[in-house]
Amino acid sequence: MKPNDKPLRPIWLEDGGRTVGVIDQRRLPHEHATRHLATVDDAVEAIREMVVRGAPLIGVTGAYGLYLAARTAAAEGRGIDDLRQAAGRLSAARPTAVNLKQAVERVLQAITAADSGQRTASALQAAEAIVGEEVENGRRIGEHGRPLIEAIARAHPSRPVNILTHCNAGWLACVEHGTATAPIYAAFDRGVDLHVWVDETRPLNQGARLTAWELGRYGIRHTVVTDNAGGHLMQQGRVDLVIVGSDRTTADGDVANKIGTYLKALAARDNGIPFYVALPSSTFDWDLTGGVGIIPIEERDPDEVRYVQGWDGGGQRRVLLCPPSSAAANFAFDVTPARLVTGLITERGVCRATARDIGRMFPDKVK
Amino acid sequence: MKPNDKPLRPIWLEDGGRTVGVIDQRRLPHEHATRHLATVDDAVEAIREMVVRGAPLIGVTGAYGLYLAARTAAAEGRGIDDLRQAAGRLSAARPTAVNLKQAVERVLQAITAADSGQRTASALQAAEAIVGEEVENGRRIGEHGRPLIEAIARAHPSRPVNILTHCNAGWLACVEHGTATAPIYAAFDRGVDLHVWVDETRPLNQGARLTAWELGRYGIRHTVVTDNAGGHLMQQGRVDLVIVGSDRTTADGDVANKIGTYLKALAARDNGIPFYVALPSSTFDWDLTGGVGIIPIEERDPDEVRYVQGWDGGGQRRVLLCPPSSAAANFAFDVTPARLVTGLITERGVCRATARDIGRMFPDKVK
Repeated sequence: MKPNDKPLRPIWLEDGGRTVGVIDQRRLPHEHATRHLATVDDAVEAIREMVVRGAPLIGVTGAYGLYLAARTAAAEGRGIDDLRQAAGRLSAARPTAVNLKQAVERVLQAITAADSGQRTASALQAAEAIVGEEVENGRRIGEHGRPLIEAIARAHPSRPVNILTHCNAGWLACVEHGTATAPIYAAFDRGVDLHVWVDETRPLNQGARLTAWELGRYGIRHTVVTDNAGGHLMQQGRVDLVIVGSDRTTADGDVANKIGTYLKALAARDNGIPFYVALPSSTFDWDLTGGVGIIPIEERDPDEVRYVQGWDGGGQRRVLLCPPSSAAANFAFDVTPARLVTGLITERGVCRATARDIGRMFPDKVK
Repeated sequence: MKPNDKPLRPIWLEDGGRTVGVIDQRRLPHEHATRHLATVDDAVEAIREMVVRGAPLIGVTGAYGLYLAARTAAAEGRGIDDLRQAAGRLSAARPTAVNLKQAVERVLQAITAADSGQRTASALQAAEAIVGEEVENGRRIGEHGRPLIEAIARAHPSRPVNILTHCNAGWLACVEHGTATAPIYAAFDRGVDLHVWVDETRPLNQGARLTAWELGRYGIRHTVVTDNAGGHLMQQGRVDLVIVGSDRTTADGDVANKIGTYLKALAARDNGIPFYVALPSSTFDWDLTGGVGIIPIEERDPDEVRYVQGWDGGGQRRVLLCPPSSAAANFAFDVTPARLVTGLITERGVCRATARDIGRMFPDKVK
């Protein structure tokens, strides 16, 4: 996405609906490669291997993946049990983001409700509906979050608004706009002078690789910092606002997000800095209250910690950081308790991270 | 340092006192290279380029560096002004660790007090005295900190004691024993079952590279984690104790240490986990109270953030992490307020991080 450009998206239907194209996000910012998913197995692998990532986007990929399964099943004359099994595999590809499970479930319901000859069309229609909603969610999150940034700009007219974000909750993680980035893009479009501190977000550096790339393309001033730096920046008065995304938020406002988010929330609280979480309602898990110890936290390959991948001038290269014999552990997410969250920026507006306020904002969804 | 071995040290006098040998810590753990410092310029460069690092060790290197300057001055017939100038350059090589300034000052005083023919010998004597004191400080910090670990082991006899540390405050940062690692080594030597979570410590990965290497050599079980992981581990009850080092501690207990330490202190406080800082008294800045905004925080080359160095199988290689056009910032330290520190482990014992308790422990030093 770029001002005046046709919006770039991280996922699209191509080849007359026979394949789903995606940006291979493991190779950004150094290489701009795409992949072409033709089967449900391709979709499962793309989610698991983080070719695509970000809660809304893996939901969309799961939805398209089940559509691809429906196409194959129709061509090969296989039935609904096959599709249920495909849905199960898609949902299990990554455990923390609830969008994946919910999107796959929704497409499966559409398939189940359709006549057997209409399953592929119904699956596609449901997947496209999810895409459309996520685009609109991003736009609205931007509009609802923008005034938070504009208020800071009005209070400090002589300097840029300094926003800190962690990981990538940009359009690459969604479809357009992003979640955490949506208010930033919206404020920038209105001429607000702003600067973004980008946490590099080890181990996979989604901040340094993806958020920095997105912001740079959009012309937004930003500075990459280590994940260690945010506390110091806040102590020094160099952060006005923190905005992050979410992979799963409980009905009472606990936020699972990329590992390290909790540390930034603690620092924001200690320094009196507002800490906002931007999320579409598809990221709420209406079945859960109390996220710490309840939301499943994905543990990934320790080699993602032991090695780091970067660009050496001629290609992508992976280098070992620690002694070859040292063990590593790789927890992908943590849970920020609602008490540390100033507010949730959703497609319906901004609310406090409490069961009551969330319930008021989403009376039709809360259980 | 290893059980039953002659202690390894990161610095030593060699060639009949003509040069100072150091381990090149930038190349560990993948390569074991040494450098040979023959002049004060060599010493300044070794400190600035982080061939040597760690507050006690850069103090010792500064002391030896001024000895090398005294040797040169004696050989070339240059006087005390030359040595004052050398002392100034050494002290300015890195700004945050107070040990450097204090060690250089102490050697300069010895030189100034000596007859002109005795300057080299006096400088060497003062430098060696500092080395001897730092070794003894490390040993005593280990003995004073060990009971903290043993008490946890007694309370949880069926599992290892889980200790989290940030950066490298091991013997590589000191001379022997280390500061944060000294109680760990001492407890391990007494047979305590323990496991260390090692923060990788971006940008220069002193945890993943150096602490993991030290612990592995000593046979201590450890797991490398990203700097983002500590909060999650603490929430999950997987950390019993945090021990870190310090680069400068004020007379009222504020602790400058490697960037990111403050975030771990916040998480420890939020989860009721003891957070200890191990330091020799040479790391106190008796002139300062109130460290946030007062202690100078070194800002290093942004390329240390934009790139990371590791081992690609055939050699050390530096790879770019972010878009080539993205800016980065590289703050090397942060300040953990005394209110977040459970206690200070010093060579004289453990005390609370308050002006009163520090003053009682060091009545001869406090101002």
